[in-house]
Amino acid sequence: MSVELIAVEGLPEVHPGDDIATLIAAAAEVRDGDVLVVTQKIVSKAENRLVAVDPDDPLSHKALVEQESVRVLRRRGDLVISETRHGFVCANAGIDRSNLDDGVAALLPLDPDRSARRIRDRLRDATGAEVGIIVSDTFGRPWRKGLVDVAIGCAGIAAVVDLRGSEDALGRQLQVTEVAVADEIAAAAELVMGKADGVPVAIVRGLDPAWRRESSVKAEIVRPPAEDLFR
Amino acid sequence: MSVELIAVEGLPEVHPGDDIATLIAAAAEVRDGDVLVVTQKIVSKAENRLVAVDPDDPLSHKALVEQESVRVLRRRGDLVISETRHGFVCANAGIDRSNLDDGVAALLPLDPDRSARRIRDRLRDATGAEVGIIVSDTFGRPWRKGLVDVAIGCAGIAAVVDLRGSEDALGRQLQVTEVAVADEIAAAAELVMGKADGVPVAIVRGLDPAWRRESSVKAEIVRPPAEDLFR
Repeated sequence: MSVELIAVEGLPEVHPGDDIATLIAAAAEVRDGDVLVVTQKIVSKAENRLVAVDPDDPLSHKALVEQESVRVLRRRGDLVISETRHGFVCANAGIDRSNLDDGVAALLPLDPDRSARRIRDRLRDATGAEVGIIVSDTFGRPWRKGLVDVAIGCAGIAAVVDLRGSEDALGRQLQVTEVAVADEIAAAAELVMGKADGVPVAIVRGLDPAWRRESSVKAEIVRPPAEDLFR
Repeated sequence: MSVELIAVEGLPEVHPGDDIATLIAAAAEVRDGDVLVVTQKIVSKAENRLVAVDPDDPLSHKALVEQESVRVLRRRGDLVISETRHGFVCANAGIDRSNLDDGVAALLPLDPDRSARRIRDRLRDATGAEVGIIVSDTFGRPWRKGLVDVAIGCAGIAAVVDLRGSEDALGRQLQVTEVAVADEIAAAAELVMGKADGVPVAIVRGLDPAWRRESSVKAEIVRPPAEDLFR
């Protein structure tokens, strides 16, 4: 079995109101069963989730973080780890200022699962291909240094694959095997995106067809606070 | 740019004392620049990190978890989230009972970075190819449901790539861009391994050659407790 990770090069700068699916269809040949990973930044731009901040006033950014957070978990210096309305726990409420003109910050999409469904539907219209879409963002983690890309929204691809009850190679019941494949696909895609290279979309080709189904990051990956040992 | 994830099929069951590099060299053609992801389970088996547990006595497993932990972060029912001697924070001290005969549990390798270096060196001896090695394991995360594979040891491939100071596509300084590529590579590899399929090794081909360097998960990814906001 093999899977291919393909950077989609040559996409233009994305502006508010742009249709990402049309841009992708013009830049790449997509096939049935492909999963496309699209970074949050271009989704937020296309959906006009841009807001003005004063680049010379740190309080302007700080106020925005508070506004986008429902719960602050930790603070240290300028860093705020908080929970967003979506239930994501991340730094600075996922507000992004890189790759944007000075004085503008990008908020997370209002409903990244819906963003993914919309791109999937529009890409089907444009190309006839039935694909999965993952909207990815770059998050830090407790206990481990370095950032990794994770899924914040998905459509047409499982967020979590439940292998509980499957037998392992020795015929023994597997113990704990709910795998967050959407997060693994987002992480994999980042390997061909490269932060500084401006490649906001990658195609993941050759994934297990059994993972093709309707799904949602919100329903399958966001852990409710009551079940969470670290909130 | 594209990267290929290739499952290494046909590896035999691994037993204590086996040389994993020799088994890989017999099963796959490896090339300079490839990164091979090897699951913890076969590394622990080859290094004879197997210990007896009484399958009918839950206390037997529990005592082992305590013994392998330096700090317990949370408990709920049978689940213990603890920090291992290596500095990893994970469930049940990383002790694995799936895919092992009843009555035997596999502890983590004593020094997974060293395990990776040893496999890398032996694979160079056996094939002449200069590869990177990542030893992977399956961990849960706070705030997000589902497990993902992460790197617990590495050799010949960067654990974290520091893009701080690089310019983004608009010539702006990037803000936070230390990417844990070793974790992303481990996650990517899992997409072709499949928990129940018994594929414990995958080849990742086509990664950025700039990432080929000596490295260590312990030095670059394990976050010291004093820097950690969640310990």
